[in-house]
Amino acid sequence: MAQFLKVKTAEEVLEMIAGVPGLDCESIGIMEACGRVLAGPLVAPEPVPHFQRATMDGFAVRARDTFGATESLPALLQLAGEVRMGRRVAMELAPGTAVAIPTGGMLPATADAVVMVEYTQALDDRTIEVIKPVAPGDNVLQVGEDLAPGRTLFARGWQLRPQDLGVLAALGVGSVSVYRQPRVAVLSTGDEIVPWETGLLPPGKIRDINSVVISGQVVQASARLGRVAVLADDLTELTAACRQAFEDHDLVLLSGGSSVGIRDYTLQVLEQLPDAQLLVHGVAIRPGKPTILARVGTKFFCGLPGQPTSAMIVFTAFVRPLLARMQGLDAGSAPARATVRAVLDRRLPSVHGRADYVRVALRNADGRRLASPVFGKSAMISTLMEADGYVIVPEHVEGYEAGEALTVYLFGAA
Amino acid sequence: MAQFLKVKTAEEVLEMIAGVPGLDCESIGIMEACGRVLAGPLVAPEPVPHFQRATMDGFAVRARDTFGATESLPALLQLAGEVRMGRRVAMELAPGTAVAIPTGGMLPATADAVVMVEYTQALDDRTIEVIKPVAPGDNVLQVGEDLAPGRTLFARGWQLRPQDLGVLAALGVGSVSVYRQPRVAVLSTGDEIVPWETGLLPPGKIRDINSVVISGQVVQASARLGRVAVLADDLTELTAACRQAFEDHDLVLLSGGSSVGIRDYTLQVLEQLPDAQLLVHGVAIRPGKPTILARVGTKFFCGLPGQPTSAMIVFTAFVRPLLARMQGLDAGSAPARATVRAVLDRRLPSVHGRADYVRVALRNADGRRLASPVFGKSAMISTLMEADGYVIVPEHVEGYEAGEALTVYLFGAA
Repeated sequence: MAQFLKVKTAEEVLEMIAGVPGLDCESIGIMEACGRVLAGPLVAPEPVPHFQRATMDGFAVRARDTFGATESLPALLQLAGEVRMGRRVAMELAPGTAVAIPTGGMLPATADAVVMVEYTQALDDRTIEVIKPVAPGDNVLQVGEDLAPGRTLFARGWQLRPQDLGVLAALGVGSVSVYRQPRVAVLSTGDEIVPWETGLLPPGKIRDINSVVISGQVVQASARLGRVAVLADDLTELTAACRQAFEDHDLVLLSGGSSVGIRDYTLQVLEQLPDAQLLVHGVAIRPGKPTILARVGTKFFCGLPGQPTSAMIVFTAFVRPLLARMQGLDAGSAPARATVRAVLDRRLPSVHGRADYVRVALRNADGRRLASPVFGKSAMISTLMEADGYVIVPEHVEGYEAGEALTVYLFGAA
Repeated sequence: MAQFLKVKTAEEVLEMIAGVPGLDCESIGIMEACGRVLAGPLVAPEPVPHFQRATMDGFAVRARDTFGATESLPALLQLAGEVRMGRRVAMELAPGTAVAIPTGGMLPATADAVVMVEYTQALDDRTIEVIKPVAPGDNVLQVGEDLAPGRTLFARGWQLRPQDLGVLAALGVGSVSVYRQPRVAVLSTGDEIVPWETGLLPPGKIRDINSVVISGQVVQASARLGRVAVLADDLTELTAACRQAFEDHDLVLLSGGSSVGIRDYTLQVLEQLPDAQLLVHGVAIRPGKPTILARVGTKFFCGLPGQPTSAMIVFTAFVRPLLARMQGLDAGSAPARATVRAVLDRRLPSVHGRADYVRVALRNADGRRLASPVFGKSAMISTLMEADGYVIVPEHVEGYEAGEALTVYLFGAA
């Protein structure tokens, strides 16, 4: 394993992530498929509608029997019965006859149009007058007019919405082949970290925040949360835990221990894993520089900063797009990069030399969406609550003025 | 039960929904609480940090020992040891001494500041020079400076995000009191409807679409999906099914059968339910006029149009805000009314006399978000796939011109 790599830009990391293939696929029922991503194109197996269907309440007719009809010279048709909703009509329609039909009803064979009830008058129980002609096909959905068999409904990579599943239901497509959802292990480490369940804090210790925040972000990214644990900052224990996590997880996230320092075991852990290939060792953003990304066989490892505010930003910037790709979505798709535009409400200074990821709070005022930079010591977890997302000040930009419109990368869904 | 009510405007219905109280509350663990809504305010039970904490790598000192230090006349301090991460420091700091401390480390008693390592030089193993003075509190988080005990963190009605749960973890708050998620029954009826699982369609029948689409919408609205069923359009069966559904559901949705006609059993079903109180019988929107809303004891019933495209609009317009309220959210909150602004890409005519809810497809072009009205017969389910949401043309507006910016109400999350 190459031990040291040049620090990469965020764009380089995202480009690398964009090339990650989707996981293997699985077949699931449509009632479970909302939000899942198609592993192949889907084609209509049969026509919709399945029968010639009325789109209006009225009378099914042979169109030619109404040609030339006017209010002063109506066409007279014999009533040959009534189509009931959801029932087959066995009869053929003889010339000069009509049958009452509701919206959605099945036209008799040889009927080719529906006269809207508004353009008819009952002369007696058995006869109607038609005062306006219809052309063949009027007020009728032809077999397959809505969906023709063989029509491609959705392409590979399409994320299924409730309405898409409704279309599949109409076609009797009960299951779909979708990309598997990645299973993610969320591990925290650090000598000062104790599990958040700890009641009385020993002096010098703090409760684990990252595993809770990152677990929530994993679920919001439509991935499956697997093992969540706090590990001692000990090489043997970390290596064993990561090795075990790779047995049944597709992505292992380890927060803490990835800054360069005496306690930095992350690279040493990766060295112990036989298939590990370091992809990213440091990203030129602030915060988030110590981010590590590695491929471990067909799986992935990501080392996140221990600082909760930094870990949350790195998750949003890189892990969310990675999880999107693993699920078959584009890395640049809406779920992968939930963003909104907002106007800066004050000046945002920045320092040269590295892309600044500055947390902002959003609010609406005077019909505009405003973004306020969240200042304050980054070590303060209270600032976590204040931020809705971040804006990026690129490396060679010295800051933005109040009033500038910027893209806000949201921590949660838009 | 009052049988007939005046058709209401959408605004009147939404105002009624805004007054619906949240369901009862329950206590759940923070790992399950993402997206849930607080049933009461949450107060910090203890201080964060719990101990005086370094925010920089350096040396813990008594600030006064550094006063007047300059590069040419540094302060000399004796090294009295090292603070290790996560460990208690029992020692007191004697005047004229310093201890090495990492970011996040616990300051010894009587130390009151941290000198950044950049402003020090090691003279020998036991002595450092400090070349810049620090004031008391510099590079230190005081006990409770981040979060003071008793501080209100979140108000009632706050929807918990991953970062909020991280703050609760830091405080050792393991469970929260949140509003219960409504359990929703999704029933479809109609003589022409067969379950979507039906393989070979009998002539005149169509597969149920609504229960699949609406189920997906229920899940997207963070509610709990309960019974999903297709029922025959038969008064006895519908009444029995609704009565049973109210035993363990908070909201019963029944699509189909709510337009005025011979087969309209919805009102008759409501009459059979002892506690039913009709709130809405018809809304002045198109589509969606036959919408019914009733209170049944402390629970709710909503009759949706049978047409899938109409049912989806009515769900988005009224059921989603209702579910938000039942979960304790504002009816006007972001989850309840996911909207975006978009520019019409063509003229949108409308007819006077009723608010038009026109489905639109969204796309991005030239950095702008464009909305295209989805035309085509509303009976065509293929139009379901095309629409991302709808725009509203109010009753007294005759339409909009191409280029106008409108609010798009999204079927899914923004």
